[in-house]
Amino acid sequence: MTPADPDFEQRTRDSFARQPAMTTIGIELREVGAGSVVLSMPYRADLTQQHGFQHAGILATGLDSACGYAAFSLMPADAGVLTIEFKVNLLAPARGPLLTFEGTVTKPGRTISVVDGRAYESGGAGKERKLVATMTATVMTIIGRADVRH
Amino acid sequence: MTPADPDFEQRTRDSFARQPAMTTIGIELREVGAGSVVLSMPYRADLTQQHGFQHAGILATGLDSACGYAAFSLMPADAGVLTIEFKVNLLAPARGPLLTFEGTVTKPGRTISVVDGRAYESGGAGKERKLVATMTATVMTIIGRADVRH
Amino acid sequence: MTPADPDFEQRTRDSFARQPAMTTIGIELREVGAGSVVLSMPYRADLTQQHGFQHAGILATGLDSACGYAAFSLMPADAGVLTIEFKVNLLAPARGPLLTFEGTVTKPGRTISVVDGRAYESGGAGKERKLVATMTATVMTIIGRADVRH
Amino acid sequence: MTPADPDFEQRTRDSFARQPAMTTIGIELREVGAGSVVLSMPYRADLTQQHGFQHAGILATGLDSACGYAAFSLMPADAGVLTIEFKVNLLAPARGPLLTFEGTVTKPGRTISVVDGRAYESGGAGKERKLVATMTATVMTIIGRADVRH
Repeated sequence: MTPADPDFEQRTRDSFARQPAMTTIGIELREVGAGSVVLSMPYRADLTQQHGFQHAGILATGLDSACGYAAFSLMPADAGVLTIEFKVNLLAPARGPLLTFEGTVTKPGRTISVVDGRAYESGGAGKERKLVATMTATVMTIIGRADVRH
Repeated sequence: MTPADPDFEQRTRDSFARQPAMTTIGIELREVGAGSVVLSMPYRADLTQQHGFQHAGILATGLDSACGYAAFSLMPADAGVLTIEFKVNLLAPARGPLLTFEGTVTKPGRTISVVDGRAYESGGAGKERKLVATMTATVMTIIGRADVRH
Repeated sequence: MTPADPDFEQRTRDSFARQPAMTTIGIELREVGAGSVVLSMPYRADLTQQHGFQHAGILATGLDSACGYAAFSLMPADAGVLTIEFKVNLLAPARGPLLTFEGTVTKPGRTISVVDGRAYESGGAGKERKLVATMTATVMTIIGRADVRH
Repeated sequence: MTPADPDFEQRTRDSFARQPAMTTIGIELREVGAGSVVLSMPYRADLTQQHGFQHAGILATGLDSACGYAAFSLMPADAGVLTIEFKVNLLAPARGPLLTFEGTVTKPGRTISVVDGRAYESGGAGKERKLVATMTATVMTIIGRADVRH
């Protein structure tokens, strides 16, 4: 996919760095491509649900950022991104020790983009990575709104 | 709706108290009814996205717990609850100062229940509460699985 | 809710009448309000799935039209409506004899509106109507595009 | 993926043939694999919405059958399949002349399976096929219920 802004990687990294939720939760930006983003976080025992699995909302947090920034990478330099809606399927309990969130644009658009995301757990000794959740997100390109920039 | 367990309120409160993510994020259980739950959290600046709005994934965290426990309140005493999937629509930026998450069972079922959730922001002086997000969640009653109890 | 076009009812009826799928499937427009629409169809044995239930896609067809026109009713006179996405939960088998589809705008917007829909079966002797499916739809107001008018 | 029933292809074809909606709409079963199904239909002008695009509900009908049968292909011989919920994103207007619906199991499960579907239009002279819609569906394996067999 062709990004509207040649400097898309730095612009995406800069915007990601402005998300306090990522720092607080411990989600880091690993890779930025044109239309794709990879994030990761170590399992956090203090962000689990009642059975010790990473809370579904935390998975949604990582997936939403992955999907939003995958779309953002393709947008013009002066655009902001907002998520309109997302849907998450939880396929397996997420127990880590490492979680990875991948977002890939399925359909870029001038106003509306559709992005698919996948969350994996990995990192255990001799353990293959395992798909634990999927997301489909619809995101919007926002231009000219003072409170939604970058 | 008729709960399978007359002691549903205490059982729901006990399970909620076992979700470390709720304490960490600052989400509290306000009300438990048969098939409905109300949670609330103060806006957290350290859990926002890049424009200062509460991160969509944090809204999903509150909504998922509200929906899951609304269904859990109707389940038998020995059941655990797992979310299969949810879908969130983001209707307005959430800036607080207070967020409320309401979950209400739309269709209870022996195995599968469908629950609708609504997130509101409120608390500003003279400000009416405002609908900021909706969720529809599909949750599953789990019986006889050692790692998914209560 | 306040419609942008005082003549919204006639405009909605006229657009609905231009949907060949409605005639072919037998879905009729019953009521139009500002931000809400009611459709109905008799059960069609030739549009069932393998167990004799009305096919989920047919329920989605009625729900999508109900949701789209609920939003359309609030739009300016020169706008077209397109569905961006929808999510359907199937709560019970739909066997008729009558199906009703209700769409109600949850959040109207200049560009994006969120609409909730409910499908009921009813009409059996002494039988209460029963909720068989729900939809949440995200629809877009289209202005100035020649192929998407009315 | 490993089907529970070695005779999965014939069993899937037999069940598909019992869906009257497929014949009525003109959707045919093209391919059956273990965990995947391909359907196709010619564009139907009498099943369009108000702008002449194939109605979103008709796309949902094809996608739901593709997803349901993709999961069904992996199920035991005595199982029935029911869709619990699906979510559809509409990426581009569908004008045919040929529509193809592909369903692929993302996560098979004993009770709950998650399936992704894609709808394409194709067939115009020199025209590449184009992705017009995606679905994620959650389907349930039903065993021992007289009204939901095969």
